[in-house]
Amino acid sequence: DLLNRIDDHFNDKPLQGQRWLITAGPTVEPIDPVRYLANRSSGKMGFAIAEAAAKAGAEVVLVTGPVNLLASSAIKRIDVQTAQQMFEAVKSEFKSIDTFVACAAVSDYRPTEAAPQKLKKQSDNGLTIELMQNPDILKWAAEQNAAFCVGFAAETNNIEEYAEAKMTKKGINVICANDVSRKDIGFSSDNNEVSVYYKNNGAMQVERLGPALKTVIAQQLVSFLPGIK
Amino acid sequence: DLLNRIDDHFNDKPLQGQRWLITAGPTVEPIDPVRYLANRSSGKMGFAIAEAAAKAGAEVVLVTGPVNLLASSAIKRIDVQTAQQMFEAVKSEFKSIDTFVACAAVSDYRPTEAAPQKLKKQSDNGLTIELMQNPDILKWAAEQNAAFCVGFAAETNNIEEYAEAKMTKKGINVICANDVSRKDIGFSSDNNEVSVYYKNNGAMQVERLGPALKTVIAQQLVSFLPGIK
Repeated sequence: DLLNRIDDHFNDKPLQGQRWLITAGPTVEPIDPVRYLANRSSGKMGFAIAEAAAKAGAEVVLVTGPVNLLASSAIKRIDVQTAQQMFEAVKSEFKSIDTFVACAAVSDYRPTEAAPQKLKKQSDNGLTIELMQNPDILKWAAEQNAAFCVGFAAETNNIEEYAEAKMTKKGINVICANDVSRKDIGFSSDNNEVSVYYKNNGAMQVERLGPALKTVIAQQLVSFLPGIK
Repeated sequence: DLLNRIDDHFNDKPLQGQRWLITAGPTVEPIDPVRYLANRSSGKMGFAIAEAAAKAGAEVVLVTGPVNLLASSAIKRIDVQTAQQMFEAVKSEFKSIDTFVACAAVSDYRPTEAAPQKLKKQSDNGLTIELMQNPDILKWAAEQNAAFCVGFAAETNNIEEYAEAKMTKKGINVICANDVSRKDIGFSSDNNEVSVYYKNNGAMQVERLGPALKTVIAQQLVSFLPGIK
């Protein structure tokens, strides 16, 4: 069956000699030492891709936000909190990278200033938080023209349209889109269903993976991506 | 030694017949289906207090925000996400409560509106999030005049002053204050050091517990609190 064929494929170590850089998990943007802004992400999809790439023989660097997951010792894991820290880690590891998979749910915005001490509730009024944009890590990676760049899009509506727009805007090769409005897949679930968008001679193609365990989707992705490179 | 004496004490089931309501963990306030605002909290301190109270014979209800922790089957666990959901759960369980321990790191504020669909980054500009106040669960509990109310204060500065002010403002019996600016204790650490503030004939008293494992601090607290009730 398919899983056996994938297992055989991985035992051949098809990614031997390649270096894959993968981001996973959320980023956490402090408002003060207690409060923060974040994106939902368990990190499971990114970790599964890292494990699948390592199993297929790649040298894997995994840059992850705060998650409750363990990575195999074969994987070089770098833990970060904020989008800026993730960007610094990606830049410093972005050497001889074959494939960059941006699976992390990076916060687009961070508070303009993080207060060094806990903000006190002063009155019965509301509060306004001013946010500024974070660096676009995936766009930066694509601009290096040095690696095959794969992005993820967590959308709740108009998924195909947004995925294609994101691909064009960031100049990347592949977008894996999932519908996070569904309760049965995505986020903290062990399952996922991914639509892989890519261009073949300028024409948009789509490959649907799953619904399946994230570990299975990850193995399918790691088998599939080198073929469209 | 002290730990053996505490163990002996707990084996006597000193809280038999009592009902304790405990909150734990962070609350998570959605900005849209992907982004959220939250407070740092692993839930470890609240879960440890729930376990210690159950071990001492109390019937325990634990209302918790999203955490990666398991509770014993003897504990009635209610999982919530937002401060409003935590408030509803506390109100519905606030019957024949002897002791209410508010250990959760409840978000003081929530976005004025949570967008039903993922907000798209529209331009290179910043973003402003309008926040409104969440209900004050501990203050509501104290106003019922029906249970011994214990609050927690996670502060980074002027800890004693803020703890005393919080006690007076909310009209509660005890504040357990910890200094979350220290890296070695608090938040995701297994260790903590707590200063327990309470009034004895109108005079402020303080009892310092730890530094020790949160499980040990929890047992000490559960032994200590009934004596000042």
